[in-house]
Amino acid sequence: MTLTLSEITGSKRSMKEVMDFFQPDFVKIETTLKRHFASHISFVNQISSHIIFAGGKRLRPLLTVCSAKLCNYNADDIYDLSAVPEYLHAASLLHDDVVDAGEMRRGKTPAYKIWGNSAAVLVGDFLYARAIELATRFEDIRIARAISKTVALMSEGEIIQLLHAKVPSFDEKTYLDVIYRKTAALISTSCRIGAIMAGGSLDEIEALSNYGLYIGQAFQMVDDVLDYTGDSNEFGKAVGTDLAEGKLTLPIVVALERASKKKRDKLMNMLCQGYASTSDFNWARELLLETGGIQYTIKKAKNLVDLACESLDVFPDSMIKTNMKILALYVLERKK
Amino acid sequence: MTLTLSEITGSKRSMKEVMDFFQPDFVKIETTLKRHFASHISFVNQISSHIIFAGGKRLRPLLTVCSAKLCNYNADDIYDLSAVPEYLHAASLLHDDVVDAGEMRRGKTPAYKIWGNSAAVLVGDFLYARAIELATRFEDIRIARAISKTVALMSEGEIIQLLHAKVPSFDEKTYLDVIYRKTAALISTSCRIGAIMAGGSLDEIEALSNYGLYIGQAFQMVDDVLDYTGDSNEFGKAVGTDLAEGKLTLPIVVALERASKKKRDKLMNMLCQGYASTSDFNWARELLLETGGIQYTIKKAKNLVDLACESLDVFPDSMIKTNMKILALYVLERKK
Repeated sequence: MTLTLSEITGSKRSMKEVMDFFQPDFVKIETTLKRHFASHISFVNQISSHIIFAGGKRLRPLLTVCSAKLCNYNADDIYDLSAVPEYLHAASLLHDDVVDAGEMRRGKTPAYKIWGNSAAVLVGDFLYARAIELATRFEDIRIARAISKTVALMSEGEIIQLLHAKVPSFDEKTYLDVIYRKTAALISTSCRIGAIMAGGSLDEIEALSNYGLYIGQAFQMVDDVLDYTGDSNEFGKAVGTDLAEGKLTLPIVVALERASKKKRDKLMNMLCQGYASTSDFNWARELLLETGGIQYTIKKAKNLVDLACESLDVFPDSMIKTNMKILALYVLERKK
Repeated sequence: MTLTLSEITGSKRSMKEVMDFFQPDFVKIETTLKRHFASHISFVNQISSHIIFAGGKRLRPLLTVCSAKLCNYNADDIYDLSAVPEYLHAASLLHDDVVDAGEMRRGKTPAYKIWGNSAAVLVGDFLYARAIELATRFEDIRIARAISKTVALMSEGEIIQLLHAKVPSFDEKTYLDVIYRKTAALISTSCRIGAIMAGGSLDEIEALSNYGLYIGQAFQMVDDVLDYTGDSNEFGKAVGTDLAEGKLTLPIVVALERASKKKRDKLMNMLCQGYASTSDFNWARELLLETGGIQYTIKKAKNLVDLACESLDVFPDSMIKTNMKILALYVLERKK
């Protein structure tokens, strides 16, 4: 996916320059993440650390910080708040790996494979609770409310996906519903709580929630593309798992619509069997390219990034606004 | 355990009369529990209903309601709040059954055995989140804070228990710590949030939190006794599971301290093997009686109930206060 940053943002700044700009934030986020997760039980800390400090992108905390800054809030407690969505994300990864029996996570063996399902479930519960507890330290009840609603949506998203795995009754609408709940809701909430904490107006809070929502949807679409086109080492998780697990992602939905009956049946069988050989996988990837499933998904993601950037129009131009637009493009460019 | 109600409460009212007194509350609690748990996904509702409407005792919601009433709060939204601890309890049961691979729950097959581990984990997550979301509908941030802290404690309690299962390094202090986190914290919080919602003074909130704490500790001690002495059909869950799972409960801790070396070694072996035959179980039960482990635990529980009743001394005498004292005794008398 070649992108012209200037097309969308009107800026000549490179992604590298933008990431450098955010470097001090990343440092503070990292310090803060280390501060709040700890339990009195070292076993819990061991598992929490395994998932929290395994080289995550820190997109969610960065969005909380940026959203607050865009609303002119610069106090350092925003970093404390920014840990909330990252802990929620880590908790959900612990549980999702149990549910999906995932083989690799952030380039490492998932927690449940090392410490067992029980430990992964309970430490996930602990991290969920710790995140919400942290959210209640800030006096605004809207923050705790947004967070708990998001956790409910996230678990519902995983459940819908579980129900639809290997059941080939799925369309783009259901896909959008699943990725909203599973991914976009939390990314949107990461922005929303930043805006709330900053004392943003209702319009500003909505604008930033939408920015996060669009980015979140695009992020998941790119994830679903990378599961077919990515490099496993770079991606940090196994490639091809969606096919093996029978996950009906957008590239697949499109391919099922557009392929010949024979190829559709073959793809359907692969999705239902709960296993995919390398040759199955290569064949499926070819089909997703041939039918335009991959291209369609990328185009959709690109449109969503456009919408994300437009959402910021309610704010006056500023350095942080431009950088947030370029950050939106990062979700398209990322390889992991 | 024969009890003289009048000894502790100074009242001649029977337990039956007190339960009749609370009957209108139980009806309203049941209606409210039906109102708030629903997801848009019928599969989620099916699993939630299986655990929520399986004949739970509704002790936690009743305590929320009573605590508020004792602080002179009688508005009907207290029933909405009372659903929060019951949903949390249901969520924790879903996860605990996955963790412990339990065979029976509230007299029924546990959810994970019917719908699988993944569904039980995710619906548990959903119920945790829904409970906390419900808690944030009331404007007082202290309620959401108490709830999320409690969930963190509950998961830590299960983790400590998991770490100590089959590892015979356990004393009464660790036992008390585990049951505080696993059980007493939530029962205490059920009272605390009722008092907060009622606008109770700090003294009143603390008094009710202590009342719940002592009841909760006593409740778990009785549970641990019933696992050896109860009737499986009446109890609603399998008897003897603690021995089979190697759970070091108070009766066991005492027996290990007091038994001869030979018997201690035999008991230790049983706890470590992860399985207990009927004759193992009968032998262990005899040992717990012979060494006084059962009697010691019951006596402790009785003392805690005394303390619970004393905690209410800061409140002026009233019908509800007397009934709450008798309710404290219920945790000793219960057979399930």
